[in-house]
Amino acid sequence: MQDDLYQLGEKIRGEVLGPAYVSASQAATDEFSEPMRAFAIRNLWGDIWARPGLDRRSRSIVNLALLSAANRPNELKIHIRAALNNGVTRAEIGEVFLQVALYAGVPTGSDATRVAKLLFAELDAEARAGA
Amino acid sequence: MQDDLYQLGEKIRGEVLGPAYVSASQAATDEFSEPMRAFAIRNLWGDIWARPGLDRRSRSIVNLALLSAANRPNELKIHIRAALNNGVTRAEIGEVFLQVALYAGVPTGSDATRVAKLLFAELDAEARAGA
Amino acid sequence: MQDDLYQLGEKIRGEVLGPAYVSASQAATDEFSEPMRAFAIRNLWGDIWARPGLDRRSRSIVNLALLSAANRPNELKIHIRAALNNGVTRAEIGEVFLQVALYAGVPTGSDATRVAKLLFAELDAEARAGA
Amino acid sequence: MQDDLYQLGEKIRGEVLGPAYVSASQAATDEFSEPMRAFAIRNLWGDIWARPGLDRRSRSIVNLALLSAANRPNELKIHIRAALNNGVTRAEIGEVFLQVALYAGVPTGSDATRVAKLLFAELDAEARAGA
Amino acid sequence: MQDDLYQLGEKIRGEVLGPAYVSASQAATDEFSEPMRAFAIRNLWGDIWARPGLDRRSRSIVNLALLSAANRPNELKIHIRAALNNGVTRAEIGEVFLQVALYAGVPTGSDATRVAKLLFAELDAEARAGA
Amino acid sequence: MQDDLYQLGEKIRGEVLGPAYVSASQAATDEFSEPMRAFAIRNLWGDIWARPGLDRRSRSIVNLALLSAANRPNELKIHIRAALNNGVTRAEIGEVFLQVALYAGVPTGSDATRVAKLLFAELDAEARAGA
Repeated sequence: MQDDLYQLGEKIRGEVLGPAYVSASQAATDEFSEPMRAFAIRNLWGDIWARPGLDRRSRSIVNLALLSAANRPNELKIHIRAALNNGVTRAEIGEVFLQVALYAGVPTGSDATRVAKLLFAELDAEARAGA
Repeated sequence: MQDDLYQLGEKIRGEVLGPAYVSASQAATDEFSEPMRAFAIRNLWGDIWARPGLDRRSRSIVNLALLSAANRPNELKIHIRAALNNGVTRAEIGEVFLQVALYAGVPTGSDATRVAKLLFAELDAEARAGA
Repeated sequence: MQDDLYQLGEKIRGEVLGPAYVSASQAATDEFSEPMRAFAIRNLWGDIWARPGLDRRSRSIVNLALLSAANRPNELKIHIRAALNNGVTRAEIGEVFLQVALYAGVPTGSDATRVAKLLFAELDAEARAGA
Repeated sequence: MQDDLYQLGEKIRGEVLGPAYVSASQAATDEFSEPMRAFAIRNLWGDIWARPGLDRRSRSIVNLALLSAANRPNELKIHIRAALNNGVTRAEIGEVFLQVALYAGVPTGSDATRVAKLLFAELDAEARAGA
Repeated sequence: MQDDLYQLGEKIRGEVLGPAYVSASQAATDEFSEPMRAFAIRNLWGDIWARPGLDRRSRSIVNLALLSAANRPNELKIHIRAALNNGVTRAEIGEVFLQVALYAGVPTGSDATRVAKLLFAELDAEARAGA
Repeated sequence: MQDDLYQLGEKIRGEVLGPAYVSASQAATDEFSEPMRAFAIRNLWGDIWARPGLDRRSRSIVNLALLSAANRPNELKIHIRAALNNGVTRAEIGEVFLQVALYAGVPTGSDATRVAKLLFAELDAEARAGA
């Protein structure tokens, strides 16, 4: 399955999520979960994220909205990190979640805010450790 | 209730949705639905949409994602129109819905595509009638 | 299946929804849908709605919240009628939907308001016809 | 894009949904909706439905459950037809929806039952017309 | 932002959730999450919960239904506590969740029951510690 | 309440989930949660799971789809175990989740895959301990 689409997906996923995340994901896979991982790399990253018709910043905003509404904190955390990499600022992420609160319910916005705060604390700790 | 927040909300809503939509909404309200309408104008349009921290194009992208995932075709149609007014092209709207299909399910993306096609046909007919 | 639970369910359903609704529902059933109808009568109406631990007014409020959030306009309309029969006023129904708008998103509250307006117009027309 | 995956997807979709549905879908597409349609044909039908690891009858049961819970009546109707083609009987479809009623709420099961009844009436009319 | 609406919201929130919860929430906020917190205080507590058109007991019942269906255990736990403060008994909370089980699925009702059991154990421990 | 339906439900639940799970569930119940537990035993296990119209393997597939889409990891884990008992293989469970990824979103499929991996690790450890 290591075809062109997979190679392109790996490349784009690395650019958006960072090399550390990609290594961790590869280490965690096994025979059972590999088809799901390969599908996501080929079709999410190699196909959708590779399409030139929408800029990466906008694609990150789509995901912040979808994943907070879908109540998927693990995936949301990954895509808050991706959004920062794609040029969405922390303040803008807060604005997205306020809008989510109005259009999808205040508890949805509050839970997303909590996920972001945890990630920001991790990133700040990483930055201090790396300084 | 026609305070500053309401006035600002009416102004921004008119800019984003267009004056024709706003007149129709005012004509359709009554004693029962007025509190909901006033709440939306004051808090969605006068507060969230008025916040300078995120550009209107990005706010429209948030709503395209949320309203297609929430399965709310009436509201989605209104906000596809708003997205066009805010500078999101038809092709970009199609890209958002493809991404929705991957992150929220292909039927969600297909139904959103159907709503957009209906609206585009209406807009094209309006354009021809106005020509 | 016309056992005690079914009989009790039919009785309570008639009290809450009114005899006209019950007759229409019986006329519309067939071999395929009968198990679902019988299940609902026995377990929803004969069991849950018959439990003395919560008053009917409160049970109607639970359903207004659940069915607007679940995006089920057919069932919501039936249970707005039931809520009126159980002593929830039109104004209180409007309050529930405003609260729904904050906790489950403004589009959810708006769509529920629209369903209620349609039902109230029907009820007003029935009242005028019966006068 | 008319590559091998697309060709395989068209073939399997035709087998599962029937040739009449496939022609109608091709006639209804346009420049805007074509990428979504092509994505579904390639990735749903050419990839997932083509995988040998799960029989078509079981795949149809997955979709009856998912699409009734997701509140997508258009797609549900298509996949009730597909389920019949894949050997799920009408009575078994009714059983799935009863189980859906318990695990996803009685209104979800009732709405799915209503969709099935409409489709069965159409199929019976087609059968009488074709006799 | 410490305007009248905020002041009223803080007052009502303190009455409904208790002073201990309010202090903890203030201690946990920071620059990123403050707009969300302020929005909730002003618009949920200062506006919706302050409206006289529906009694607080009924508002709590709305939230028990919405938050169990929305799968938001953190917020649900806060509002089970609020419901007790607003005069809904533990037994009535159990009745609401049974009704939720029928209208939104048994797993939804079971998960809500689990959240309530955890909170009741905490409250009982607090009561013993305070005795 | 220990009537025939309850007895039948206990029997079927024990067959599907295994005796160890059933004992743990009985030990964990109390006055508050007992009505929910009894309802599930009587109506899920004594009624729906006892119906002869659909084989247990198919009923397990319905639940894998519904519980992954509903974002209920506790219940999903229980029903992945049940699916194995009912003859669905690990590979087939993986196929169901891939299909879920397409029809309900890749994050939904990924989260379900994660739940299954955790359960399989527990089962493998139990098997090694029991060897």
